[in-house]
Amino acid sequence: MTTVSPFAPARFPELPEVAGVELAAAAAGIRHADRLDLALVRLPPETTVAGVFTTNRVVGHPVVWCRRILPAGRARALVVNAGNANVFRGEEGDEAVRRTAAAAAAALGCAPEEVFVASTGVIGERLAVERIEATLPELAGALRPGAWEPAARAIMTTDTYPKGAARAVEVGGATVRLAGIAKGAGMIAPDLATMLAFLFTDARIPAPLLQRLLAGVVPATFGSLTVDGDTSTSDTVLLFATGRRGPPLGEADGPLVAAFRQALFEVCRELAVQIAKDGEGIGRFVEITVEGAVDEASARRIGLTVANSPLVKTAIAGGDPNWGRIVAAVGRAGEPIDVDRLAVAFGGYAAARDGRAVPHLDETPLRRHLEGREVRIEIRVGDGPGRAVVWTCDLTHGYVEVNASYRS
Amino acid sequence: MTTVSPFAPARFPELPEVAGVELAAAAAGIRHADRLDLALVRLPPETTVAGVFTTNRVVGHPVVWCRRILPAGRARALVVNAGNANVFRGEEGDEAVRRTAAAAAAALGCAPEEVFVASTGVIGERLAVERIEATLPELAGALRPGAWEPAARAIMTTDTYPKGAARAVEVGGATVRLAGIAKGAGMIAPDLATMLAFLFTDARIPAPLLQRLLAGVVPATFGSLTVDGDTSTSDTVLLFATGRRGPPLGEADGPLVAAFRQALFEVCRELAVQIAKDGEGIGRFVEITVEGAVDEASARRIGLTVANSPLVKTAIAGGDPNWGRIVAAVGRAGEPIDVDRLAVAFGGYAAARDGRAVPHLDETPLRRHLEGREVRIEIRVGDGPGRAVVWTCDLTHGYVEVNASYRS
Repeated sequence: MTTVSPFAPARFPELPEVAGVELAAAAAGIRHADRLDLALVRLPPETTVAGVFTTNRVVGHPVVWCRRILPAGRARALVVNAGNANVFRGEEGDEAVRRTAAAAAAALGCAPEEVFVASTGVIGERLAVERIEATLPELAGALRPGAWEPAARAIMTTDTYPKGAARAVEVGGATVRLAGIAKGAGMIAPDLATMLAFLFTDARIPAPLLQRLLAGVVPATFGSLTVDGDTSTSDTVLLFATGRRGPPLGEADGPLVAAFRQALFEVCRELAVQIAKDGEGIGRFVEITVEGAVDEASARRIGLTVANSPLVKTAIAGGDPNWGRIVAAVGRAGEPIDVDRLAVAFGGYAAARDGRAVPHLDETPLRRHLEGREVRIEIRVGDGPGRAVVWTCDLTHGYVEVNASYRS
Repeated sequence: MTTVSPFAPARFPELPEVAGVELAAAAAGIRHADRLDLALVRLPPETTVAGVFTTNRVVGHPVVWCRRILPAGRARALVVNAGNANVFRGEEGDEAVRRTAAAAAAALGCAPEEVFVASTGVIGERLAVERIEATLPELAGALRPGAWEPAARAIMTTDTYPKGAARAVEVGGATVRLAGIAKGAGMIAPDLATMLAFLFTDARIPAPLLQRLLAGVVPATFGSLTVDGDTSTSDTVLLFATGRRGPPLGEADGPLVAAFRQALFEVCRELAVQIAKDGEGIGRFVEITVEGAVDEASARRIGLTVANSPLVKTAIAGGDPNWGRIVAAVGRAGEPIDVDRLAVAFGGYAAARDGRAVPHLDETPLRRHLEGREVRIEIRVGDGPGRAVVWTCDLTHGYVEVNASYRS
């Protein structure tokens, strides 16, 4: 039933080994038989960790667990399952996380509080934790460095391709590596948009700095992505640093930290774009640039309001450069704008500027731009310094098809 | 291409004459030939007026005009056109409104500042104001009491049926009447959700009180309605009181004012429900009740977040009692909730309560409820006094169909 995204790459990207990181994946039968749905990652002692989680007030039991153990800043393992999000199950849901962490800890010889857990899939149903417990020992015996692709496949739900990105950074004469995998806001099973991203580096970075770096890049990367505005209960981004390569990085290492930060930003952006390009039912990928806002956060909120407008998204599905709908979405974002400076362009071709339609507008080049698979929308909302880029996809029959089907 | 809503009534409702109100409609050729697209209403001297407008920061030129003349509290005419919203046209757009008001004033013998104007349709294109000017004299000659249906038809865009409602109220021994027409959030042409509602009474109510009454009923009626969350640049609700029947009503007339207020609330609610039942591509009508919030406004924001969730709306299109998506939408509304008291039911059948799934839930009765055309969703978010009801429709292939077509 699901059509593969037109943006699916021919193959999974080449990702390097990250020193100290070993991965394995298996089909544990959590929801469907014979598909990879459980991933285990082993991390060496001294691994630090940073995390960012959903802003939803209803959160999955694994998010509660991760938030609780994150302040210690240490990690030895990550367990991720697809097929069931383990949300809204009361004490039973918390118990399922504890059992998962305990089973991984026993298999790997660490403390349960060093095991991070994430789950994605249907909400409100019981997680078959006994299948996870039964499969973890086997996974622990199959761990190997560089097994990114099976891990990326094991965390997929309605994603149509596995997602990965990597960078190498020169840090004080050594090359440290950064690799990440993610799954999409392409909803679940098909049930709920959940974005999961797991990033690994062999750089040596203390947890508080790691947390600041991650929190710093998320707004302009994973935070600038929307498929349908439905923030999941389970969104999780985790960054692990094994400390196996390069010098220890601290606040004082300005330029080195900046180089790492740039690589982190690029990996996160690349994964965010991959997620947008696998939005459910996607026909066209859309990049929206907002300039002239009062600040970056305001520009982003305006961009996300446009990106979430069903009217804008259906117009793009129809190849219609319907700038009036964009203007209306900008106006309802509730952000300060200068209406007399408001301008909209598609792929560099102006449709409106200085608060009114371009006189005698010839829509031919705009429409031609919309014939492509990648659509750029440029919006000016005033003369302020705020600028942001957000990504989304169009709203097609495919989206309705995937999400109107029953949860079987 | 457009399928008529399954909720379309067999005929336009019987609406009474409202003393002093005369209406006429014509095909002025504003966008399409041979369809009613211009309505004129004449009001007697002493008519008071109240108005509520879009919260969008980008507003149509007619909204700018109406906001400017509203404080005088007087009205002698209303001119409404469909086919072109007259938005984002700079000085030319303001000039089009002035010319429309001047032409109506000349035809009816009043001041232009007593003429209210509303436009709905495509955004950003030039309004053919000369066609309005050419048609108004003819309309002025065709005015008659009780011509609600042609007026209701003339303001339609992608609406599939004309909308009207009325009540009679006993006020101090006299019967005053209240009648209203509206057009839908069923978008425009298909271009933009615009909600227009025009209400007329022959009661005698000073403008400040009229404004308070209207502002008081809007949140729980037109403000509790959403099709896709895309607030229009042109939303307008106007209430005119001709003062031709009953005693003058003032602040001191508590019970009489309360009776009128109740009738006003009922007419507005009935029109709001009619609009939701004509949402583009509608398959099912949805009424969402939120209880236990900290206050009514908070309950309404939670309800509207659920009502705007594409995941909830597609699930309902698919007949799926997917309460997990509702819980997730409640959580991302950003309102205070007590997760341990969170409960969701469909048509009275509980799916989740006290913050977790109902154990051993049998979904059969829930699914049976979703086989009907009218779906009720009951949500409890805590033990607070806040309660609200909101209305929406499902998100179907029909919605994508209507809105992905080009603006021709």
